[in-house]
Amino acid sequence: MKEQKILEQMLKGDVLALSKLISLVEDRSADVLKIMAKLYPKTGRAQVVGVTGPPGAGKSTLVDRLTELFRKEGKKVGILAVDPSSPFSGGAILGDRIRMQRHNADAGVFIRSMSTRGSHGGLSRATKEVVHLLDAFGFDVVLIETVGVGQTELDVIDLAHTVVVVLVPESGDSVQTMKAGLMEIADVFVVNKADREGAARLAADLHVLLGLVETKPEWKVPVLLTEAEPQKGIQELYQKILEHLSFIKDREPREERRRQYRRRELVEILIDIFRERLLLENGNSLFGKLIREVEAGKRNPYDAVIKILSDRESLAQIFGK
Amino acid sequence: MKEQKILEQMLKGDVLALSKLISLVEDRSADVLKIMAKLYPKTGRAQVVGVTGPPGAGKSTLVDRLTELFRKEGKKVGILAVDPSSPFSGGAILGDRIRMQRHNADAGVFIRSMSTRGSHGGLSRATKEVVHLLDAFGFDVVLIETVGVGQTELDVIDLAHTVVVVLVPESGDSVQTMKAGLMEIADVFVVNKADREGAARLAADLHVLLGLVETKPEWKVPVLLTEAEPQKGIQELYQKILEHLSFIKDREPREERRRQYRRRELVEILIDIFRERLLLENGNSLFGKLIREVEAGKRNPYDAVIKILSDRESLAQIFGK
Repeated sequence: MKEQKILEQMLKGDVLALSKLISLVEDRSADVLKIMAKLYPKTGRAQVVGVTGPPGAGKSTLVDRLTELFRKEGKKVGILAVDPSSPFSGGAILGDRIRMQRHNADAGVFIRSMSTRGSHGGLSRATKEVVHLLDAFGFDVVLIETVGVGQTELDVIDLAHTVVVVLVPESGDSVQTMKAGLMEIADVFVVNKADREGAARLAADLHVLLGLVETKPEWKVPVLLTEAEPQKGIQELYQKILEHLSFIKDREPREERRRQYRRRELVEILIDIFRERLLLENGNSLFGKLIREVEAGKRNPYDAVIKILSDRESLAQIFGK
Repeated sequence: MKEQKILEQMLKGDVLALSKLISLVEDRSADVLKIMAKLYPKTGRAQVVGVTGPPGAGKSTLVDRLTELFRKEGKKVGILAVDPSSPFSGGAILGDRIRMQRHNADAGVFIRSMSTRGSHGGLSRATKEVVHLLDAFGFDVVLIETVGVGQTELDVIDLAHTVVVVLVPESGDSVQTMKAGLMEIADVFVVNKADREGAARLAADLHVLLGLVETKPEWKVPVLLTEAEPQKGIQELYQKILEHLSFIKDREPREERRRQYRRRELVEILIDIFRERLLLENGNSLFGKLIREVEAGKRNPYDAVIKILSDRESLAQIFGK
């Protein structure tokens, strides 16, 4: 079995094998489930930090700086840059090349970009699985960098232990256009490019907002001002991330919550597979035919559900790929 | 076929038949899909208004007042009170009785309560289906009243054309404890019991919040002050609801969006059925066994997914109830 061998090499520390496995996950290969089943026992060790915010907020540079700080403590860092909006990963790859040059000689840093490639809702699961891969490979820290925030990005960031939301003072990137979802996911707010006009104002707005909407009762969400060049506030950001990671660790779930979590994970994997297949189905099976009739308004959805559920062959078609 | 006859009677205007169908939906009867498939062509006419907020905010009374105003224009009103937190519908039923007395002689008003009854995630679908029932029955307006806001309530309110979020000046019910999700769903904010201390402050806070987080670019979310006894601001609330309903109607989706919406509706019905069965499964089938192993941490979820997908009998068990 080919992927069995790649998996073994990856677990021995072969970066090329890791890259190959990530590509399989990205392409939603049929072998993904088998691969994940095998490496799952090796996961659960990495600390996962999500960094999200609008395009141009300077997320990549911040991730770079944070990587340097983690590296100084000898921690191995996997970086996953997710761009749900990009139809192809051109821009991201360019960014990677530049970054790769910086960390080129450092075997303790791994950088990978992912984009949608036309997938419908599959990105969230693919991202989670790549995080599992990086975790199993042995990275101490996994940094997920994603443009946000829509539902996909919220799903992507869902598995981060600590979420950093990066904003910049420019109009349009301010809280006025910020979606409410960002308030809920942020463990740390960063106002980056803090030398620009409006930075203090944005930070003040965020403080007001955080005072009004208390999103995390036990954790006071900080608002930090940062600059990448010359570096300002980066050390403080790093400390806050460590602080939140240890805060989260102290709140390890009890056995009953863990049981529920495990069942939910299983159910969500199944549902993701199910949803993906249903949304993409365009074949000439009975099922594909029903979906097209519903789309055209010629058949009502409940009627189609009855037909699908009563027909084992349809169900097998949904899952039988 | 018994439910066929009930359905016919319901479509002729028999309220008792309507009540029976709602009970079938609430009990997640196996006949629900058939019933919904048949009445689906009759739906799509009702205007659906959601009223949500913390317990004790005076939602029921506001719904009552709004009902009177809709009735004055000759509109038939169906009221659906959803209480996701209540383990049994005792309290809700008591409230209904009191309200029923008021509208007792009025055949143009129908009131029904729903509670979770131990269902896991099924409430959202049941609620949507009851709204379809009320719609098909011929109510011009359907008012959904729900305590909020958790994910279930957000799902419940999802199908409302217009969402009214009701708050009260009391501490603990203020914006400080308000979840960010409420900001996103509100089309109209109401500060009820506006004679109490802190009402103006709460309204001002909401204005600040709405200024900072612009949730609906094309619709300016109003903040209204109301009192039930003596009535203050109710007429204005009513007007704002009508205004929003007509605002929404002008934005009717085009054919391509409608096609996507129809497919999504089909997919979501199937996924809801799937999720419900997966979360509740505790039988001795292979599938039930696998889920328990995953819960206990003895088997990893990906491994279980592979086993489930490769076993048509498991899939049939999930759907074959």
